[in-house]
Amino acid sequence: MIDETHDRNVTSWVAGADIHEDFPVQNLPLGIFSSGGSEPRAGAAIGDYVFDLPHAFALLEPMAEAACNALRGQTSLNAFMSLTAAERRNFRRAVFRVLTDPGFEEEASKSLVAADDCVMRLPIDIRDYTDFYAGIHHARNVGSLLRPENPLLPNYKFIPVGYHGRSSSIRVSGADVTRPRGQIRPNPDEPPVVEPCRRLDYEVELGIWVGGRSALGAPVPISKARDHIAGLSLLNDWSARDIQAWEYQPLGPFLAKNFATTISPWIITAEALEPFRAAPLRRPEGDPAPLEYLVDDADQEAGAYDIRVEVFLRTHEMAKSGDAATLLGSVRATDLYWTPAQMVAHHTVNGCDIAAGDLMGTGTISGAGESEKGSMMELSCGGRREIVLPNGETRTFLEDGDEVTMTGWAERAGFRRIGFGRCGATIKKS
Amino acid sequence: MIDETHDRNVTSWVAGADIHEDFPVQNLPLGIFSSGGSEPRAGAAIGDYVFDLPHAFALLEPMAEAACNALRGQTSLNAFMSLTAAERRNFRRAVFRVLTDPGFEEEASKSLVAADDCVMRLPIDIRDYTDFYAGIHHARNVGSLLRPENPLLPNYKFIPVGYHGRSSSIRVSGADVTRPRGQIRPNPDEPPVVEPCRRLDYEVELGIWVGGRSALGAPVPISKARDHIAGLSLLNDWSARDIQAWEYQPLGPFLAKNFATTISPWIITAEALEPFRAAPLRRPEGDPAPLEYLVDDADQEAGAYDIRVEVFLRTHEMAKSGDAATLLGSVRATDLYWTPAQMVAHHTVNGCDIAAGDLMGTGTISGAGESEKGSMMELSCGGRREIVLPNGETRTFLEDGDEVTMTGWAERAGFRRIGFGRCGATIKKS
Repeated sequence: MIDETHDRNVTSWVAGADIHEDFPVQNLPLGIFSSGGSEPRAGAAIGDYVFDLPHAFALLEPMAEAACNALRGQTSLNAFMSLTAAERRNFRRAVFRVLTDPGFEEEASKSLVAADDCVMRLPIDIRDYTDFYAGIHHARNVGSLLRPENPLLPNYKFIPVGYHGRSSSIRVSGADVTRPRGQIRPNPDEPPVVEPCRRLDYEVELGIWVGGRSALGAPVPISKARDHIAGLSLLNDWSARDIQAWEYQPLGPFLAKNFATTISPWIITAEALEPFRAAPLRRPEGDPAPLEYLVDDADQEAGAYDIRVEVFLRTHEMAKSGDAATLLGSVRATDLYWTPAQMVAHHTVNGCDIAAGDLMGTGTISGAGESEKGSMMELSCGGRREIVLPNGETRTFLEDGDEVTMTGWAERAGFRRIGFGRCGATIKKS
Repeated sequence: MIDETHDRNVTSWVAGADIHEDFPVQNLPLGIFSSGGSEPRAGAAIGDYVFDLPHAFALLEPMAEAACNALRGQTSLNAFMSLTAAERRNFRRAVFRVLTDPGFEEEASKSLVAADDCVMRLPIDIRDYTDFYAGIHHARNVGSLLRPENPLLPNYKFIPVGYHGRSSSIRVSGADVTRPRGQIRPNPDEPPVVEPCRRLDYEVELGIWVGGRSALGAPVPISKARDHIAGLSLLNDWSARDIQAWEYQPLGPFLAKNFATTISPWIITAEALEPFRAAPLRRPEGDPAPLEYLVDDADQEAGAYDIRVEVFLRTHEMAKSGDAATLLGSVRATDLYWTPAQMVAHHTVNGCDIAAGDLMGTGTISGAGESEKGSMMELSCGGRREIVLPNGETRTFLEDGDEVTMTGWAERAGFRRIGFGRCGATIKKS
């Protein structure tokens, strides 16, 4: 539902917010922060500030009591995400009003903290983490390295393929990632060896934060799936390709993935993203129609999100020389073969329960173009082609000291651009 | 360490405890229960009673303060499992003393609740759930149905293969399991259909409860792995074979597993199991030696647990006629190819962190014999051979109304037998 909180002509009294590339008042993403050694608590990003929500309860509570109760004393947004979509939207309206109505400025400005003084935490106490595989270009690119004649497996166009991931090792942007060690088998005629991963990669994904709760045994019909999509973040699904190649059969990736996952700290709410819903990828002629439980009429024109994500690399050399990070890929979420609603409907069709605290990854997003690859594996053709960086360095996979950063945003004529902030981490020697 | 709590000659003043087949005072498994509508709280099973631990704090606290603090006001055993192994052992000694020394009887008997009056809950707030695949006979039996010439994949004897499972749908014994629906493809020349699973199966496993905590980026060496094995329960990894066959490539099982997992309510502590540690499966000649990070000298003679698990089926017809459940399989945990310590060392070799709240499944345990199969898939040769039950009914997979129950125990000359209690559930029509 588009409402006054999406009106590009409404301005905020917060200095600089209206020209901020990520966080104008039309965005209002939610996160958990601490500042000056304080207990972690909920905040909303506005320009270069974090709006300390509990500090502003006196202003917000008369307009949004349920949400304030769900945030009070909490060090995660789980209880907030368990609210109904209507309660969450109501809270957004309240924050929007406080940050736009000049009558609130004097009081509310006391609740602004400079973002530079804040340490961001995981926004959610993550319970179950599911990673999908909905990027068809990625699946095809990777599949063609393994099976040139038959890159996509027969189930791909019927099933939003997914698998369970590890929640304990998910960290917020900024935390270093230690290069994993593990069993690799560089020579197929020799036994495996235990060494630091040689083919360390990133994967560009979006993370989907679940809202509400479904009961065990009760599938969520696709027409209700959107009620459970509370917001999105950027997600880097770090991958150890050599560990993966040796371990993954028959039960799927395990140690190749569970050493680290990085997410951006701000949850871009479903409400903020409302204007950027878009038609999903048009299925090429000859592709099967989705099975009935994956079809929703409302999904046909607005099931996807039109979000652009870019991924940058800055090597240790580049950092030393003061060079800017270099763009490795730019992808668009409308290139996903399955929508978030289809993922939710599929995840629960067997009765599996979902709840606030769940995180779902979309799978690596790649596009059809050369510059639209969401992993190094694709850029380097499985390590066979060197990627030449602007300073002359080359890469096939990540080296120690490399910093990988993702940024993302949504834009559309008639609306303010809203951004995701940064999702970055540096590779540390193991 | 074998100590006075394992002495078979020590008796308890609790009526019937010494002749109880599962819960003599040498066992003292821990769980979470409620009775008479009370808040869930920690208890220890003793004979046909539950010893209400918070109710007995006045007696226990002088001997085991840290443990009492970790249990006070808690509705799960997570904080208790975060204690050191020494603190947990100390608590066991305190409970043992209170339940054996007649001087405590008058006071402590006030903290006994009849087990029949208790509702058992999940003992742990389960965070991450990992399922291994360490049953080599099972892996070979299932593999030979798919690849007769090459049943075990090349990585099997090098890697304790595992994958991530879903924690939200784990339920304690007694909760019904709804038959999952999902995509199946009965006719490979036709598109898949969405129907109730036709090949619903159980899998006999042990669940391993993690204790303590390891840091992200810091592998647990196998010599320290035992510190993180806090206890065991029975685990039924319900499996939808037809959903699995269609969905599992390339990322592993997902909806075929995450609709339900059932565990027994009592955690049989590592301390109680100390006398039943045993030599792991002897690797057949020609098998590769485990890689160095999976070898611990202490593991050679005592890395496994000698635990017998039996699985019973009682159909709706049998229940109606008052027939007893029929034994389908009897398996032994010493038939696992990998030990729990090897699982912990492997899980963390890449730096993945583990903590109390983690549950690890061993994978389906089968043995070499005809009567030692841990799943119906194996018993029915992938559905090709009917299993004839005593009342003349037949099965290839589970039908609605079927109740599957696992029991387990450890026994050894010179020690009292200790049991796991029951892990059962009935299949409900979807």
